[in-house]
Amino acid sequence: MNAAILTIGQEILIGQIIDTNSAWIAQKLNEAGVNVQLITSIPDENSTIISVVNELLNKFNLVLVTGGLGPTSDDVTKLALCELFDCELTTHQPTLERIKNLFSSRGLPLTRLNEMQADVPDRCEVLDNPLGTAPGMWFKHGDSVLVSMPGVPFEMKSIMENHVIPRLLSQSTEIVIVHKTVHTFGLPESFLADKISEWESNLPKSISLAYLPSPNSIRLRLSSTGNNKELIHKVIYEQIEKLKAIIPDNIFGYDNDTMALVVANLLKNSNSTLALAESCTGGNISHLITSIPGSSAFFNGSVVAYSNKVKEEVLGVNAKLIEEHGAVSKQVVESMAVGVRKLMNSDYSIATSGIAGPTGGTQAKPVGTIWVAISSRNFTESKLFKFGNDRERNIIRSSISALNMLRLHLLSR
Amino acid sequence: MNAAILTIGQEILIGQIIDTNSAWIAQKLNEAGVNVQLITSIPDENSTIISVVNELLNKFNLVLVTGGLGPTSDDVTKLALCELFDCELTTHQPTLERIKNLFSSRGLPLTRLNEMQADVPDRCEVLDNPLGTAPGMWFKHGDSVLVSMPGVPFEMKSIMENHVIPRLLSQSTEIVIVHKTVHTFGLPESFLADKISEWESNLPKSISLAYLPSPNSIRLRLSSTGNNKELIHKVIYEQIEKLKAIIPDNIFGYDNDTMALVVANLLKNSNSTLALAESCTGGNISHLITSIPGSSAFFNGSVVAYSNKVKEEVLGVNAKLIEEHGAVSKQVVESMAVGVRKLMNSDYSIATSGIAGPTGGTQAKPVGTIWVAISSRNFTESKLFKFGNDRERNIIRSSISALNMLRLHLLSR
Repeated sequence: MNAAILTIGQEILIGQIIDTNSAWIAQKLNEAGVNVQLITSIPDENSTIISVVNELLNKFNLVLVTGGLGPTSDDVTKLALCELFDCELTTHQPTLERIKNLFSSRGLPLTRLNEMQADVPDRCEVLDNPLGTAPGMWFKHGDSVLVSMPGVPFEMKSIMENHVIPRLLSQSTEIVIVHKTVHTFGLPESFLADKISEWESNLPKSISLAYLPSPNSIRLRLSSTGNNKELIHKVIYEQIEKLKAIIPDNIFGYDNDTMALVVANLLKNSNSTLALAESCTGGNISHLITSIPGSSAFFNGSVVAYSNKVKEEVLGVNAKLIEEHGAVSKQVVESMAVGVRKLMNSDYSIATSGIAGPTGGTQAKPVGTIWVAISSRNFTESKLFKFGNDRERNIIRSSISALNMLRLHLLSR
Repeated sequence: MNAAILTIGQEILIGQIIDTNSAWIAQKLNEAGVNVQLITSIPDENSTIISVVNELLNKFNLVLVTGGLGPTSDDVTKLALCELFDCELTTHQPTLERIKNLFSSRGLPLTRLNEMQADVPDRCEVLDNPLGTAPGMWFKHGDSVLVSMPGVPFEMKSIMENHVIPRLLSQSTEIVIVHKTVHTFGLPESFLADKISEWESNLPKSISLAYLPSPNSIRLRLSSTGNNKELIHKVIYEQIEKLKAIIPDNIFGYDNDTMALVVANLLKNSNSTLALAESCTGGNISHLITSIPGSSAFFNGSVVAYSNKVKEEVLGVNAKLIEEHGAVSKQVVESMAVGVRKLMNSDYSIATSGIAGPTGGTQAKPVGTIWVAISSRNFTESKLFKFGNDRERNIIRSSISALNMLRLHLLSR
């Protein structure tokens, strides 16, 4: 089954919001064996919606549409679909009841705009949306299916998971697509490519390989299609085993793993606790860790020590060390790591101190100079990184490099 | 001038990465008076690239393409463009020299894959890329222009800012598009719509209005087109003044403002310092603040107090308070705020304590129960928020709500 994803909203075309819905939908469709061949975004214009939807329905078996179903006047998707499918709006009573209950339970008055959210084209099947006012709509059109959903991400996700994906799975053919992603860190793209070029050229013809670089990692994606899911998994697994032998330290995870999640699991499995002292990363490592559900089991906390006073008074860094070596130095970052580990009575700690930019650099320590330390009761180690000029990328790369240092240490014990 | 943006990469179609390039490009084009009518993503397939690019060149004056220019075998954009435009690859000597210098300055060996990055189709103009190995390429095709750029965001941005935008501005017509965005917080979408409905219906016909809801804010975008930029700005400005009179407390910023940036500016302007005690927000507020260049001028630091021990021992919260009222309570969050303000000797502080989820809720304090406090030398205030079940959204909404409390307090003095 071939699919297209269409997002509707002028805010996307002027670059005001990033379309995150399409990536999420694409991932879910792929997992369900649906091949996404096009993702496209158009403005909230009646005539554009009609012509593009029509064209997509002629080319694809499945067209998933998000956006333009809100209560305000700039939302025109429902009217455009009525015109395209030559049908009328009619009130969907169960949805109207749900909206009424939603508003009365919150003690809010019901406006006419809210009520109109229950009006749907009379030839669609309604897909219940318990999290919002606009329901999803399922249209059959010849051999193709069009689904219209609200653009609010959590409402769309609920409709996809509870209605669209189950319906697609019940109709699916035997062909499956398997993707397996290997996350690597520590080798630039062209070096990685050189190092694994022999492995790459010996890959079975049935497997395709893609390189996906980002500031967090370079990911290698192995993909294969067929009708025997177990067999495809086995063939991919064998190749990953060969890859592991070539770059054992660089592979840190698979598929939805993140560096923070991998470190979190290593800490949980060894019943160890973690504390952080962040200067240049400014709370980003804490945020990456605490975004993981259940992180309170191993994460005690952190000190974001932006000023030197906080480094001295909260973390106990000797003022002389800062005076002699500067806050961005091996001596200070190691003292920060030891200080926060003791302060928060933790088994492990990470500390960062560097110049994220855009200002604050000197000739000796230009923007992008970052020290990272890790510490445990009988071990403290630090490392100097030299990144570039971009503040945001420096924060991200410092955070991931710091977590990777702890990962390698935890694995080496 | 009408434009389309095309991103190439199988990783987008399987939802492995979110296409952030298109939003950035769309924003820059809009600012340059170019009307973006389509954003679309396709896989790295020779035949698809050729047919889609051809179709877009027939429909639009300007087609901007990113992706598929890397050194590895899955990158096929350059070859597809050669086939489409019927031309050959030739070595671009200045680019080859640059690549050689780049590698030797880093002490890295030059591989054949790296060298091949200097090969370009012989009928394009080369757009220099000082930040990477793949240069941009500018093709004229009848009345239309096609620009191919690498997909790595910071390389693409450099080529856009240094080459593409200046060239477009030098060719641009007199028609300008003006967008002005008003950021609001604290009113749900349908309530906001009701409250400003009279203002909305009295807007001049030349102005269009859009509602853009997100967990951070509901943004109102006013747009207008014409040939007198100053006049358009004036008309929009007058309407915003009227809007401010209706919802004065809810408007917190404009255009690229964020809640963190607005609070940062208020603190800087009053020469005040800030410290944070974060429990449920886990470092996210610190990260939002420290992502702002120059934040070290007013931000002393924070304590991410995930465990009760850290709340007691680092922030000085009385253990009895936690025992009697629980960590998620008015008493504890206020004590955290006072504690961190004193610890870091700051003028202001914010503290958060809540149940972000997915677990940890009770009947009395379900997931989504969040206490926020703000404190200054002679003032401490706290507020209870009741959000939903999603961990990520709870972290975001708590962070923005906390910053908004401080914003309103700073404005009221």
